[in-house]
Amino acid sequence: MITHRTLVAGGAGFLGSHLCDLLIERGDHVVCVDDCSTGRIENIEHLVDHDRFRFIHHDVVQPGLDELVAGVWAGEHPTRVMHMASPASPPEYLRRPIDTLEVGSVGTKRLLDLALVAGARFFLASTSEVYGDPLVHPQPETYWGNVNPIGERSVYDESKRYAEAITMAYHREFDLDIRIVRIFNTYGPRMQADDGRVVTNFVNQALRGDPLTVFGDGKQTRSFCYVDDEVRGLLALMEGPVTGPVNIGNPGEFTMIEFAELVLELTGSPSVIEHRPLPSDDPKVRQPDITIARDVLGWEPTIELRDGLTRTIDWFRAKSAERVA
Amino acid sequence: MITHRTLVAGGAGFLGSHLCDLLIERGDHVVCVDDCSTGRIENIEHLVDHDRFRFIHHDVVQPGLDELVAGVWAGEHPTRVMHMASPASPPEYLRRPIDTLEVGSVGTKRLLDLALVAGARFFLASTSEVYGDPLVHPQPETYWGNVNPIGERSVYDESKRYAEAITMAYHREFDLDIRIVRIFNTYGPRMQADDGRVVTNFVNQALRGDPLTVFGDGKQTRSFCYVDDEVRGLLALMEGPVTGPVNIGNPGEFTMIEFAELVLELTGSPSVIEHRPLPSDDPKVRQPDITIARDVLGWEPTIELRDGLTRTIDWFRAKSAERVA
Repeated sequence: MITHRTLVAGGAGFLGSHLCDLLIERGDHVVCVDDCSTGRIENIEHLVDHDRFRFIHHDVVQPGLDELVAGVWAGEHPTRVMHMASPASPPEYLRRPIDTLEVGSVGTKRLLDLALVAGARFFLASTSEVYGDPLVHPQPETYWGNVNPIGERSVYDESKRYAEAITMAYHREFDLDIRIVRIFNTYGPRMQADDGRVVTNFVNQALRGDPLTVFGDGKQTRSFCYVDDEVRGLLALMEGPVTGPVNIGNPGEFTMIEFAELVLELTGSPSVIEHRPLPSDDPKVRQPDITIARDVLGWEPTIELRDGLTRTIDWFRAKSAERVA
Repeated sequence: MITHRTLVAGGAGFLGSHLCDLLIERGDHVVCVDDCSTGRIENIEHLVDHDRFRFIHHDVVQPGLDELVAGVWAGEHPTRVMHMASPASPPEYLRRPIDTLEVGSVGTKRLLDLALVAGARFFLASTSEVYGDPLVHPQPETYWGNVNPIGERSVYDESKRYAEAITMAYHREFDLDIRIVRIFNTYGPRMQADDGRVVTNFVNQALRGDPLTVFGDGKQTRSFCYVDDEVRGLLALMEGPVTGPVNIGNPGEFTMIEFAELVLELTGSPSVIEHRPLPSDDPKVRQPDITIARDVLGWEPTIELRDGLTRTIDWFRAKSAERVA
């Protein structure tokens, strides 16, 4: 079996750091590149002493990454370049709109050029947000999406659509070996407590004993994939036979109410459920069609919501205990 | 009345050069910036001796434009920055896919930064291509479009959608004064004979006596705006009260057959009409909804197809006579 030298841009983020774990586990030499604007050193601190792991503090929008990588690997090129770098939650990308646009355009191009020179396979982390407010449900990869190009969220959505377009252009123009994944909602340890997502909101509200905020009647549904399943899917695509884009996510749907009740049960929290009016820009319903992932990559999620949620709650609990100690 | 210092990026192109003409006519000082990758010096050679006109040979994707402009205007900043730079016809952007992506992302950001430092109003030339293969007909500005992010044409469509997103982000983030126009099919003198568009194809086929190629039964329709109307619309938006995006185009529809017959009549050509099978990627039907342009800007097209076509034919005829002489 080949030992890969894998560069993970955004490797200190939520998904990126779990991916680094899996790559180290399979025997890769890993360079994790992150400017820590939204990623965090604590996500990878258990890896920094590993002899096959190196961390480079660098913003992929800026030039000079090739020299830094050459320095770390004594002139050896990477065989895999995985672009996981971007602010990814609405509070983060709305706080850094221009950076978000830049990492999808300039950052993607710099990493594509690096892969091209290295002769490496390039992997782009795209997103279900390219489907926008979908008119087709669930979404197959052939769906072109329904995105407002001038809306507030377009700094993320259009940045990722552009990243897909330039990745395909490098594939067509230079025959670069590529993979594109469209990542759906993912949850698990190392999520940021202030990411504004429903999982972190509910778990943290329950652990603090605060009311769980449910918008509207709570009958709207969401699909969530546990992070271990998700990164296993990313790797299946990375080493699989199709360029993509391929949806990787969990198609299981739960209502907000079911979800809130499960969090209350698993935390044993005395919190109550509090209904609030539905905001006008309530996040859209999205559900992956994972036919390609199942049939071509042999991947599907295996971790039940109950199990994934238990592990997530345990992690948040341990983290808040650390903080108190 | 204020005399503007107007920077026109892509000012040697088809639309850009007509815009320069109009700006000089209204009394502006004009700096035309073009790398002549698709623009042509002959489009502006009648302007180069004008004392209010300067040409800078420069690629807006590259740094350094601010120093060049400062040099030309003795340190004075522009009051208007108009971004008309991009390959714009399918043969051109498919020949230069990466450049097309770059001028929409990096080029747009450099020009936004220049406008921001100068305190200038920024004007973005976007396109009806952001509507893709529209499911709504005609297209109002509120329509979000139906674009394939990984298709061959996405190098242009997604580049322009990105350009709109980053322009809006500068407006929201820095309160930059902006205007965004969505330009629909435009025709007239200075089109490139090999741009693959139906107007140039028909006119040049008729002038050469070759058969006019009509795809399918020719009953599919197109809308075309004469270039003088179009650039007058751009200026109305530039000086009008709305940021946009605003559609500027001609909603009048003609079938391919009507159009071919009119070209034959006006050229007096002995050419015949030849039907060919409809290609699978036949250009999409688009028709602008120009309610906002009409009601808010007081603009609408005034030049009949017959008149515009006559002027276009005269220009192509004179050009080919020049070439023979």
